Amino acid sequence: MVGALPVSPLAPAAFPELPVIDGVAFAAVAAGVRYKNRTDVMLARLAPGTSVAGVFTRSSTRSAPVLDCQAKLGGASDDGAAILVNSGNANAFTGKHGLTSVAEICAAVAERAGVPATRVFTASTGVIGEKLPHDRIVAKLDTLVAALSPEAGEAAARAIMTTDTFPKGASASADIDGQTVKIAGFAKGSGMIAPDMATMLVYIFTDARIGEKPLQAMLSGLTDQTFNCITVDSDTSTSDSLILAATGASGVDVTDNAQFEDALHGVMLDLAHQVVRDGEGATKFVEFCVTGASSDADAKTHGLAMANSPLVKTAIAGEDPNWGRIVMAIGKSGAPADRDRLSIRFGDILVAKDGWVNPDYSEEDAAAYMKGQDLVVNVDLGLGTGTATVWTCDLTHAYIDINADYRS
Amino acid sequence: MVGALPVSPLAPAAFPELPVIDGVAFAAVAAGVRYKNRTDVMLARLAPGTSVAGVFTRSSTRSAPVLDCQAKLGGASDDGAAILVNSGNANAFTGKHGLTSVAEICAAVAERAGVPATRVFTASTGVIGEKLPHDRIVAKLDTLVAALSPEAGEAAARAIMTTDTFPKGASASADIDGQTVKIAGFAKGSGMIAPDMATMLVYIFTDARIGEKPLQAMLSGLTDQTFNCITVDSDTSTSDSLILAATGASGVDVTDNAQFEDALHGVMLDLAHQVVRDGEGATKFVEFCVTGASSDADAKTHGLAMANSPLVKTAIAGEDPNWGRIVMAIGKSGAPADRDRLSIRFGDILVAKDGWVNPDYSEEDAAAYMKGQDLVVNVDLGLGTGTATVWTCDLTHAYIDINADYRS
Repeated sequence: MVGALPVSPLAPAAFPELPVIDGVAFAAVAAGVRYKNRTDVMLARLAPGTSVAGVFTRSSTRSAPVLDCQAKLGGASDDGAAILVNSGNANAFTGKHGLTSVAEICAAVAERAGVPATRVFTASTGVIGEKLPHDRIVAKLDTLVAALSPEAGEAAARAIMTTDTFPKGASASADIDGQTVKIAGFAKGSGMIAPDMATMLVYIFTDARIGEKPLQAMLSGLTDQTFNCITVDSDTSTSDSLILAATGASGVDVTDNAQFEDALHGVMLDLAHQVVRDGEGATKFVEFCVTGASSDADAKTHGLAMANSPLVKTAIAGEDPNWGRIVMAIGKSGAPADRDRLSIRFGDILVAKDGWVNPDYSEEDAAAYMKGQDLVVNVDLGLGTGTATVWTCDLTHAYIDINADYRS
Repeated sequence: MVGALPVSPLAPAAFPELPVIDGVAFAAVAAGVRYKNRTDVMLARLAPGTSVAGVFTRSSTRSAPVLDCQAKLGGASDDGAAILVNSGNANAFTGKHGLTSVAEICAAVAERAGVPATRVFTASTGVIGEKLPHDRIVAKLDTLVAALSPEAGEAAARAIMTTDTFPKGASASADIDGQTVKIAGFAKGSGMIAPDMATMLVYIFTDARIGEKPLQAMLSGLTDQTFNCITVDSDTSTSDSLILAATGASGVDVTDNAQFEDALHGVMLDLAHQVVRDGEGATKFVEFCVTGASSDADAKTHGLAMANSPLVKTAIAGEDPNWGRIVMAIGKSGAPADRDRLSIRFGDILVAKDGWVNPDYSEEDAAAYMKGQDLVVNVDLGLGTGTATVWTCDLTHAYIDINADYRS
């Protein structure tokens, strides 16, 4: 259960200090949805004029809150907005009860926080298939609203954890025409989470000014290079949600602004990497860097084939420079590859080229490299100019421990 | 290493008695390709007039023997044929050396066994990326040819094992117009095999008479329902090969014969199941039976999504009736699903229907069911008439042990 897992060896030293984002306030509370003695609900209130964009799981069995958020997005409004998230119960595969719970929560948040119900975005993470006790959440709304503070981002990040072993936060700023725009975000997720809890949730806030349409376009594009390039175990949650809110409080317009996009990309990549670093049972953080593919899409296919291969992931866990399994994963990916043009590097060590092992390859050197905690595997296909980078963790006994335990 | 692994708890009690197939003789020998103190090369000689069909891995990094077999198939000949397989070395990702080794072996077998080199089919299974010491194999050919016997099928099945924990054999017969046709086959494989050895190899023999073209069509069709419906860990070998040889010695023509096709299907399914039962670390044999999908192809996509999901497989290892993970896997598969039409059964136990848990569902009953060794999970999509059945094993600590150990 939560709290019993040791902190990932790949965790950052501390939660970062998040800057205050003008127009955003947070609160967290212990509502007893499922867990005892910890916070499990967070509320974020967004000032009038905030633009909201989101991306969600593509699962065909997605949860009631995801369906509700997807229906509401794109409804730009000058009124305020709110985000409410609970942990402990996913409100997924709960039949018609699911949408009823979402509607009850949204109506209550709208009333207490003074925003339209159509601008309340919710998420739930935890057990699948159990009715969400939404009354417990509604009962705590007055407490939450009273506690709203621009400085409570870390408390909010902690309230949405399930079996995450550390809270995940990141921030950046961009100087645009002499003015500063700030970005702060947090995330939860460590693969699909024991015993049957799922979900990656990400919330990012900025005081930049930008309309919902360009904000959504920027978010979708950056998601493909960040959160859609990580994998822990190839399994997809029913509840994955990423929400980006731009309050406009800085007065700085960032429509089509490359500096802002770079800063946002940095925050998203940092959070994505932290999710991998908290991957269930992870002891190694691995970057698969693919170049020379026929297209960027093919490069990503090869990258994910390696990152999702149980045999590649167990070899990395065993600190084994088992390049034969890299060849296997490239071969099975379905994207074009030519054995005789392939080259493989572990870090700077050239392992294989021209369809065979490099004559100067030293297994001893490669084995020493594999003992590191952060590893880079480079694969060049020698076919074209397509590139992609994908991140994952290794597959260890702890993953089995976490996921094979009978729910008690 | 080989021999150190305990026999799978899912293994059959004994190797079956294989019938003699007129026109086929086997021999096995210890050539010291890599292993010590065991047989590691098998030869099968096929009488003149034998039709040969085959299916192979789709990997783009497939091995030299696979490329050679694919080039040779379809060259029906009235001369005899031969199959030579070594274990211990995969002759994969060995650059130009790979094809040289295959050519040397084929030329030598052709000469010693009295068949055309274009009718010698080889396979190699074991370590990837090391040059095959084909001289050691060639040096044993006289011994092999002298030892050829119609009754040495089991010895041949044992010689091609790598870290298989038991040899796999199956047979059947069909009575056609008062005459009997016999089928016998053997296989090796238990996922991708430790430490970096791969490959499923299957050899099936019959005394039926049938041309190569209809034999190939029958084999390809049946492979889609048998070997292409099993998965241990979603990884695809560089060397998977299945060869079917029909000697015609019975004189019974089986072109388009449904009885023969049924019997062949039975042998192929039996061998496919045995490969799963020897899956690395397997403690449970699991059948995913999908009905009500929009098409058969969609049903198979759902089946494989469940069978390849690490979270579903670890839940099964933990004897956890974790149907939320089944919902997750169906949702992520990419094939159509409607949460509110989905029903899920563990054996006869109705777990979920109409988008939520069955009100009569007893977790205690389901947990008791999951303690069995052979499990059936039924998923009905409620969308159409598409069906598929997929088989797999669970994902346990032993899989990590076998695959994460550093190659020594």
